[in-house]
Amino acid sequence: MKLLLCGYGAMNRRVAALATERGHEIAGVLLLRGSRADGHPVYRPDERLPDADAVIDFSHPALSAALLQAGTGLPLVIATTGEKETLLELMKEKAAGQPIFFSANMSAGVHMLTEIVKFAASLLPSFDIELTERHHRKKVDAPSGTLIKLYDAIASVRPGVHPVTDRHHSEGRRTDEEIGIHSLRGGTISGEHEVLFAGHEETITIAHHAQSKDIFASGALDVAERLIHKDNGFYTYDNLGVD
Amino acid sequence: MKLLLCGYGAMNRRVAALATERGHEIAGVLLLRGSRADGHPVYRPDERLPDADAVIDFSHPALSAALLQAGTGLPLVIATTGEKETLLELMKEKAAGQPIFFSANMSAGVHMLTEIVKFAASLLPSFDIELTERHHRKKVDAPSGTLIKLYDAIASVRPGVHPVTDRHHSEGRRTDEEIGIHSLRGGTISGEHEVLFAGHEETITIAHHAQSKDIFASGALDVAERLIHKDNGFYTYDNLGVD
Amino acid sequence: MKLLLCGYGAMNRRVAALATERGHEIAGVLLLRGSRADGHPVYRPDERLPDADAVIDFSHPALSAALLQAGTGLPLVIATTGEKETLLELMKEKAAGQPIFFSANMSAGVHMLTEIVKFAASLLPSFDIELTERHHRKKVDAPSGTLIKLYDAIASVRPGVHPVTDRHHSEGRRTDEEIGIHSLRGGTISGEHEVLFAGHEETITIAHHAQSKDIFASGALDVAERLIHKDNGFYTYDNLGVD
Amino acid sequence: MKLLLCGYGAMNRRVAALATERGHEIAGVLLLRGSRADGHPVYRPDERLPDADAVIDFSHPALSAALLQAGTGLPLVIATTGEKETLLELMKEKAAGQPIFFSANMSAGVHMLTEIVKFAASLLPSFDIELTERHHRKKVDAPSGTLIKLYDAIASVRPGVHPVTDRHHSEGRRTDEEIGIHSLRGGTISGEHEVLFAGHEETITIAHHAQSKDIFASGALDVAERLIHKDNGFYTYDNLGVD
Repeated sequence: MKLLLCGYGAMNRRVAALATERGHEIAGVLLLRGSRADGHPVYRPDERLPDADAVIDFSHPALSAALLQAGTGLPLVIATTGEKETLLELMKEKAAGQPIFFSANMSAGVHMLTEIVKFAASLLPSFDIELTERHHRKKVDAPSGTLIKLYDAIASVRPGVHPVTDRHHSEGRRTDEEIGIHSLRGGTISGEHEVLFAGHEETITIAHHAQSKDIFASGALDVAERLIHKDNGFYTYDNLGVD
Repeated sequence: MKLLLCGYGAMNRRVAALATERGHEIAGVLLLRGSRADGHPVYRPDERLPDADAVIDFSHPALSAALLQAGTGLPLVIATTGEKETLLELMKEKAAGQPIFFSANMSAGVHMLTEIVKFAASLLPSFDIELTERHHRKKVDAPSGTLIKLYDAIASVRPGVHPVTDRHHSEGRRTDEEIGIHSLRGGTISGEHEVLFAGHEETITIAHHAQSKDIFASGALDVAERLIHKDNGFYTYDNLGVD
Repeated sequence: MKLLLCGYGAMNRRVAALATERGHEIAGVLLLRGSRADGHPVYRPDERLPDADAVIDFSHPALSAALLQAGTGLPLVIATTGEKETLLELMKEKAAGQPIFFSANMSAGVHMLTEIVKFAASLLPSFDIELTERHHRKKVDAPSGTLIKLYDAIASVRPGVHPVTDRHHSEGRRTDEEIGIHSLRGGTISGEHEVLFAGHEETITIAHHAQSKDIFASGALDVAERLIHKDNGFYTYDNLGVD
Repeated sequence: MKLLLCGYGAMNRRVAALATERGHEIAGVLLLRGSRADGHPVYRPDERLPDADAVIDFSHPALSAALLQAGTGLPLVIATTGEKETLLELMKEKAAGQPIFFSANMSAGVHMLTEIVKFAASLLPSFDIELTERHHRKKVDAPSGTLIKLYDAIASVRPGVHPVTDRHHSEGRRTDEEIGIHSLRGGTISGEHEVLFAGHEETITIAHHAQSKDIFASGALDVAERLIHKDNGFYTYDNLGVD
């Protein structure tokens, strides 16, 4: 596969490294300004672009918009965050002429985790649910975005639940509607999420551990390898298919 | 709910205790011979039975067959193991006149676990799978029946896999088709099963922990509570429904 | 070993069952009033007591005080909670004439866990520490007494630490002095405690899982088996010895 | 701290990166041949070396021997594997004139884990022990070197134990002397080790997770920071001190 990279920050540098390991080729890098990308040829989005099979975009809204406007006709894998509504509208409009995939979280594993947890929550209606996430000591926001995604997936099949983030001042027993939320911070942990389902004399736990941010780069490559065989249209993890 | 218990071994004694805790009533106990059941009235299967809503059967093939032949018309929850083919035939025949549920493993959690693992295995085709079970030091057979059930569920969506129980003499890298099987034994552990899905820079684990054998007694009660609202017919966990 | 049981509540009933399994004999039960103890002979503390090797006391302060005042000269294992200061004074006075062991938490495992965690905390001064406990949905107090015991053990080797029970309103990075405290509640979990040590690119976790309250009954028997070989004096887990 | 790096393979490249992050300076790189080291000045071991506080050696026996023979008088942190007996003899001889630290496994965490496990094994004589390790799918040898180190530490406090790597053909109950050994392989797991202590109604687990090989680079830097304050002599993790 010949790939164009849109943006060349930390994520697309990892995409370049992993793509080469997998035997793909980097045809060039798209930037709004600047001309350095570890020796890869650099293009502006409105220039005549080199021959390529797909574009992977980990950039920023202005560059993503320019890429979409350029009308390349190429399969696009877009992971840019920010100005989501505007970009989504543009993606859906341009998807008539090319396959476009979008996800704010490119890790296929996190997406699959969400599906598995949602499936489990619907199978285990009488089990209490508690969510725990662990991240490195520098992460300030709590809980993590992935935990919120998991909570939302559970709430979609268990209407009426509410989050509880601290039990140390509580004065009564746990209710069926509580979902405990626990954020651990320490060291350099890349990201661990665990969903506990606690029932009568048994528990089921579903956990995801990320070793590094490579899961996002790797996920984008997996999507590109699949997207090049797809018809024009707008795709997310929900309709891309897993087979 | 008024319950008849068929058999009065360790499992139905726990059913009696848990049923009482839940506010149900034990109308009587069915035995082929003997007359003692902690003060509950004892009946033979061919006697006129007291008024009841359902029967829970943790007994042996001869008693289960007598119960089925008695034509009580009552919803039956049958967990007897042994002579499975003969009993299944009889159950399916008698199911025309009463709702009959059968499972050799009455734990709803273990059944749900199997469903979740099967779902996950189909969602994560590129992840390596390893299975681990932990049981008390007195358990001689390895791997556990539940682990075999999990393996079979995975094999049904991943044809071509084969089990590997010892890597200490292996001479090559792990292949895609291997499923590692690991049996830990120690102390009084009631039963823990873990499925590891290992991918590129991320893992997903799904684990089930049993605190005690109560999960089987509790599972039978859950099924009975649901079965009394069902039409005549033959049921397993696959068609009983979870809602 | 011939045992006298002081009190006959839920805990000493389990002690009686486990003692019989181990081949010990119950010589009698001491009660302040009442005369029923599953067929065991019942005595008042001031009566002439039958021949015995040790007494296990899971009772209440009035009965424990009467036992101590009786001057039996027998090795005493005392797990009574309440009026701790008064009882401790009496125990230390009477220990001149008999070996007396006291602990408010008879689980040897929890005691060993505390020792292991303290050892680890002193070995890993640059690792961040987070504590998590899981208990059944009916437990109202949070965090658990065992978690507090673990926190105190850590604080004894890391002066200056402070607990953090909720990060969802925090506005800065985790500091070295924080120890996160997380209380999960659900189902019928008997008691699970986990200490996370998170360092640079590695973590060490130390976890304890209780299957049931039997660990307290079993712990008291272990202590009695050791105490009968000891000289007169006052003992706790800190000076009983592990060999 | 000004550091000389002896060898410039994958490990010392990570040492260089981490040392810079910590505010240390790379004074130069020692190589037997070749002259490229990412722009750092390159020296032969027998040349006049630049001013430095310590040397970190992740190289090969010939270069390590040359470094030792050079008589630099500098604190040396040596992690070279191979020709261990010859190198050890040379290290002990040269340690009269400089502080020399040696370990074949530079991860402080793995060393601490071993100490903690040994401590726990001595505290929990009646608990059954099972060892599990997880590594990436390309690792052929099983069990891992770290697991063997853990086994040896346990065997040193529990004479008479023997390893069991497969229970699927066993015909009797687990004995006290068995230590189960389980090697999981999958994905890109960096290295996870778990020690299970299983007792009556309770378990204690001690686990170590490595995120990446950085723990070895980071461990070497930690040792160097401590070694520069030490007297001449031969050191390992057992006598370096943790305070």
